[in-house]
Amino acid sequence: MHEWDADTRVDATGDGRFAADLTDRWHSAGGRPNGGYLVAFCLRALGEVLPHPDPLVVSAHYLRPGVVGPARVDTEVVRLGRRLSTGEARLTCGDREVLRVVASYADLGDPTGRALDLGEAPDLPPPDECVDVYGGRRLPEVTVADRVDLRAPKPHGWVEGRPSGVPNAEFWIRFADGRPADTASLATLVDTAAPAVMELGVTDSATVELTVHVRARPTAPGWLAARVATRHLAGGYYEEDLELWDVTGRLVAQSRQLAVSAGR
Amino acid sequence: MHEWDADTRVDATGDGRFAADLTDRWHSAGGRPNGGYLVAFCLRALGEVLPHPDPLVVSAHYLRPGVVGPARVDTEVVRLGRRLSTGEARLTCGDREVLRVVASYADLGDPTGRALDLGEAPDLPPPDECVDVYGGRRLPEVTVADRVDLRAPKPHGWVEGRPSGVPNAEFWIRFADGRPADTASLATLVDTAAPAVMELGVTDSATVELTVHVRARPTAPGWLAARVATRHLAGGYYEEDLELWDVTGRLVAQSRQLAVSAGR
Repeated sequence: MHEWDADTRVDATGDGRFAADLTDRWHSAGGRPNGGYLVAFCLRALGEVLPHPDPLVVSAHYLRPGVVGPARVDTEVVRLGRRLSTGEARLTCGDREVLRVVASYADLGDPTGRALDLGEAPDLPPPDECVDVYGGRRLPEVTVADRVDLRAPKPHGWVEGRPSGVPNAEFWIRFADGRPADTASLATLVDTAAPAVMELGVTDSATVELTVHVRARPTAPGWLAARVATRHLAGGYYEEDLELWDVTGRLVAQSRQLAVSAGR
Repeated sequence: MHEWDADTRVDATGDGRFAADLTDRWHSAGGRPNGGYLVAFCLRALGEVLPHPDPLVVSAHYLRPGVVGPARVDTEVVRLGRRLSTGEARLTCGDREVLRVVASYADLGDPTGRALDLGEAPDLPPPDECVDVYGGRRLPEVTVADRVDLRAPKPHGWVEGRPSGVPNAEFWIRFADGRPADTASLATLVDTAAPAVMELGVTDSATVELTVHVRARPTAPGWLAARVATRHLAGGYYEEDLELWDVTGRLVAQSRQLAVSAGR
């Protein structure tokens, strides 16, 4: 069993409720569970109660930091349709709700109809010609950096004390243990890299809301190519857009989050 | 009282519930209430139960078409914080929930801290040098076109039977009766224009989910400049990104929706 599967396990306890256990193995800066890790519990629970196999669009509102230890996911089936089904999931640590997710599921297994792509996959050298985006450095509390490999032609500027001033990046991403990305885990991957605004010297930010559009099942195991950018920062709030493309050049996920910088 | 205010009125009936009445004055193609119109009821109700004045990030999952006539909004206060508060609202027509919204509110009245804008407002001629994007044509059932003015240097290609093949557009937008845009009504405006995919000949589409980031209070009454684009269409699903800028050149809202084309 791969790390993501073991560490995001949910066990049904009846009436749409699930027991979970948050580990300390997916911590972001600040030593708190990563947002992409938290959303995984909600999606695994919704995957059990909704009939369609693939999360198509996921809205996640982050209410409080997650807490390592026993947790609970309460699900509600909101609507069952032929093509789409929708559910809500609430992740609770102790007696406090930390994350509320509404998600619509579909079957992305047999795409038909017109396809058009006006975007382009990142133009990156092969992963084995790239280096760790963190330059091999690790902060002890940022354990998510050991769960997910991130590679780019050179380390991020901010890692080396030289923020580029340009809040965007392109890099390869995959689970460190080689787990293939699937539609259930894409929503984790989109939130596991360091924020692009680190290149502006903005640190200590928190996600308010994350929306993920899953656009296709990754057609190949292995690396995904990521493009991340922030374009608007005001009043302490900024958006971050991220795209994930599989190695065949197909867009598999788009995400956008609204985040707040604690220092404004 | 302006049209939007009258037509999206909600009346508290106790316990976080509100009575509403959907009019036929904000219909999109197909003769169904526009998605931006529906979300307004949820935001007006949440505005009554949350302490912060401005919707900052709004996630709306569309479950079924709205139905003209009496409706109900049920709200839940999810979290009250110093800087942000979060609520959920469900719009029900008859006995069927048609829309579920989760939204976080903030106070955008006194932005402080660093600001950076790497985007640019649309470069449009003044509104009085532009023309109606529909070329003055109206479909009788599309009543929302009488509530919102949309102007561009020339009509949309698809309106004149010549879809451009390029699913993006820039245009001016405002409420037709001159109501100033405010943060409560921006989530309506982002969904009132025709989909950009009309330029691909894609018609008959429906919104699955709409996320709106409200980034600033519009600093001036009158026209807003809009930029809309779709970049990825596959399996019948496409995203639409829209930005609204006020006349001082400030981004006031970003939205993204995932929509499905009925014909795939």
